[in-house]
Amino acid sequence: MSEPKKKGISRRSLFGAAGAAVATGVAGYTAHSVISGEESQAADSTGPVEFHGAHQAGIVTPAQDRLHFATFDVTTDKRDAVIALLKEWTAAAALMTAGRDIGQYGAVNGPAEAPPEDTGEAVGLPPARLTLTIGFGPSFFQDAKGNDRFGLKGKRPEALVDLPHFIGDNLDPARSGGDIAVQACSDDPQVAVHAIRNLARIGFGTTAVRYSQLGFGRTSSTSRAQTTPRNLFGFKDGTNNLKLEDTAKLEEQLWVQPEDGPEWMVGGSYLVSRRIRMTIETWDRTSLSEQETIVGRGKGTGAPLGKSDEFDPIDFTAKTADGELKVAKDAHIRLAHPQFNNGAELLRRGYNFVDGSDGLGRLDAGLFFLAYQRDPRKQFIPIQNQLARSDVMNEYIRHVGSGIFACPGGVPAGSYWGEKLFS
Amino acid sequence: MSEPKKKGISRRSLFGAAGAAVATGVAGYTAHSVISGEESQAADSTGPVEFHGAHQAGIVTPAQDRLHFATFDVTTDKRDAVIALLKEWTAAAALMTAGRDIGQYGAVNGPAEAPPEDTGEAVGLPPARLTLTIGFGPSFFQDAKGNDRFGLKGKRPEALVDLPHFIGDNLDPARSGGDIAVQACSDDPQVAVHAIRNLARIGFGTTAVRYSQLGFGRTSSTSRAQTTPRNLFGFKDGTNNLKLEDTAKLEEQLWVQPEDGPEWMVGGSYLVSRRIRMTIETWDRTSLSEQETIVGRGKGTGAPLGKSDEFDPIDFTAKTADGELKVAKDAHIRLAHPQFNNGAELLRRGYNFVDGSDGLGRLDAGLFFLAYQRDPRKQFIPIQNQLARSDVMNEYIRHVGSGIFACPGGVPAGSYWGEKLFS
Repeated sequence: MSEPKKKGISRRSLFGAAGAAVATGVAGYTAHSVISGEESQAADSTGPVEFHGAHQAGIVTPAQDRLHFATFDVTTDKRDAVIALLKEWTAAAALMTAGRDIGQYGAVNGPAEAPPEDTGEAVGLPPARLTLTIGFGPSFFQDAKGNDRFGLKGKRPEALVDLPHFIGDNLDPARSGGDIAVQACSDDPQVAVHAIRNLARIGFGTTAVRYSQLGFGRTSSTSRAQTTPRNLFGFKDGTNNLKLEDTAKLEEQLWVQPEDGPEWMVGGSYLVSRRIRMTIETWDRTSLSEQETIVGRGKGTGAPLGKSDEFDPIDFTAKTADGELKVAKDAHIRLAHPQFNNGAELLRRGYNFVDGSDGLGRLDAGLFFLAYQRDPRKQFIPIQNQLARSDVMNEYIRHVGSGIFACPGGVPAGSYWGEKLFS
Repeated sequence: MSEPKKKGISRRSLFGAAGAAVATGVAGYTAHSVISGEESQAADSTGPVEFHGAHQAGIVTPAQDRLHFATFDVTTDKRDAVIALLKEWTAAAALMTAGRDIGQYGAVNGPAEAPPEDTGEAVGLPPARLTLTIGFGPSFFQDAKGNDRFGLKGKRPEALVDLPHFIGDNLDPARSGGDIAVQACSDDPQVAVHAIRNLARIGFGTTAVRYSQLGFGRTSSTSRAQTTPRNLFGFKDGTNNLKLEDTAKLEEQLWVQPEDGPEWMVGGSYLVSRRIRMTIETWDRTSLSEQETIVGRGKGTGAPLGKSDEFDPIDFTAKTADGELKVAKDAHIRLAHPQFNNGAELLRRGYNFVDGSDGLGRLDAGLFFLAYQRDPRKQFIPIQNQLARSDVMNEYIRHVGSGIFACPGGVPAGSYWGEKLFS
């Protein structure tokens, strides 16, 4: 059968007798760290991932199988209301990532006459490695006219640029931007959906969901202990991704350093999200050799062309007997490789999606690309400029949504998401 | 980590040396039954479910965790082309449900110059209990003007009625109907997506995807060995569902009997699909007692009101000290119960969905309802008429998509989906 295994901490029900006695109300936002003695990387797919730490969880955490990503527009103009929201969200996030519901039955007086604090659909489910990761978009710092919104304009990081228009961009504003992004990853989609839904609910009156995206399958590994998954082109994706084991490189490529500033972003990272529609029907009519030439890897093995193993180093100069480059001049893996991008790398955390069909008999399918980095001006932007200009794969993809977010460093116990930004 | 366990039969890669030697081409549509010695109900969530049998798999099969459902419009007017398609689909379905790719590298002459026969994104994944279940809609038998399309008009079952308009229906034609429906269920969404995508691909030129729906979490159990999952109202759903263990009841309520006719439907069942949008934001503002009164069950326990255990029999006459019915006159569980529907029951197989947001700051979330039955005229239609008229839950739901399909009996080895219909 397919029952979730309950090896990890079980979700403590707010409905049971034991649950009713739990004293951690959301409004109180007490520091909550029941699992702080545990390893931060759970060894099974049902356990919890530690919420507090030097970095936010959900970035180098071994990529979970499922995603629910949402961005929010802030609908209040009151700085205090935003701070109060972030405190409530943080308390709820700490509870949910520990596998707990976010509150009790109802209000103090007459529990059954108040709405339940937790929406309930995750009752009984283990935390399933839930992580919640927050980021702030450019519009959080200043509105379209450049006006300061919450007294934060001066704190906008220089690296949090508005992304330029890339060749071929076909962005839907309704699927782009957002003042705040929350990435929920879990091995159980019900747990990820529950988390975003309850944050959205806490935000009623302060925020509105701008867009939300489910991803059903990870397309990247962020640890050498994971196998490389396949994207909807049928290819292994992210073989040379940054991995959590590359600790020195992570400092260089992923985490904002003290010399980068601003201070509130140290230990944080910049997230670029792109909704990339794949025209899989056209791709599926393309010959195998054409597909492999475009990617630069074998479809079956994932090995660079001319090599036999997925993890063999790429030889960009190797030629066939006819004198042709084995990895073509415009192959995706060449154009995206650090060697041809001034050493720039990304930590990718993308997910496959299928959002029904498009009314033209085709699946609305593709890759929800998520990439973390130390400075998008030196990483995503130049890499994407090169890909947008030259990648033959562009015939089969279309960027239809976009976002950029400053994800602060980790949350110490007793703090809240963005505290340093507001202090 | 979250790597899929490979206890079951591993997907044999079409890309490896071993895969290339497999001689089961799709076009050949040879009877394929490598796993016929195995139990039809896999004991783990990675193994295969037998495709052939007296009934189609995916109906009483213990409900898998994930869904990809699609309906297709037939774009050819040639009967032979439809038969050829169904043969190809059947061969592909037998292979995929056994955890195998659907073909070889490429065509016989010059493999790499042809598109791969399988799109590749499930290479290396176990079958994960994939089932594929087919059904034919009213429009398959005759077009909107009543014209015979494929010489099948006389074979349309009487029970395959056009669903009436129910009070409150707000159906989107683009999410309703369809000539053919295919339900893919699996414990791995990538496997379910791969299956529908490859059937869609085989159908190029003959069919077009009308709509497609992912479901991320099952909301029903179809076996007593499964725990009852929760829907997005946070309630346990389907406690009193028909279960595969109720063999006598299944003959009475689920499977078309010889005396029902037509002969090609014997051993089959009728599927009603409804896309039910839940206005979860409104629901979440409703008090716990109101929610429980509407459903008729406790939110935490799932027990009928006035009882303590989920599976306690419902007492529809019990009253409180104030003389009020414990299970209200218009509680959902009362209105839907066989006792108040002339004994009619349904085998439900629904899934939770979230399809992004609706542009108004709300999640586009709900229940993709799937129910199998022996005769919709005596089961779904009267039950839904009663619910549409009286269920207080209607304040929080909206039916936005609808379909009805005749799902024939099982496929014997060597046969194909719908062979009896065409013979």
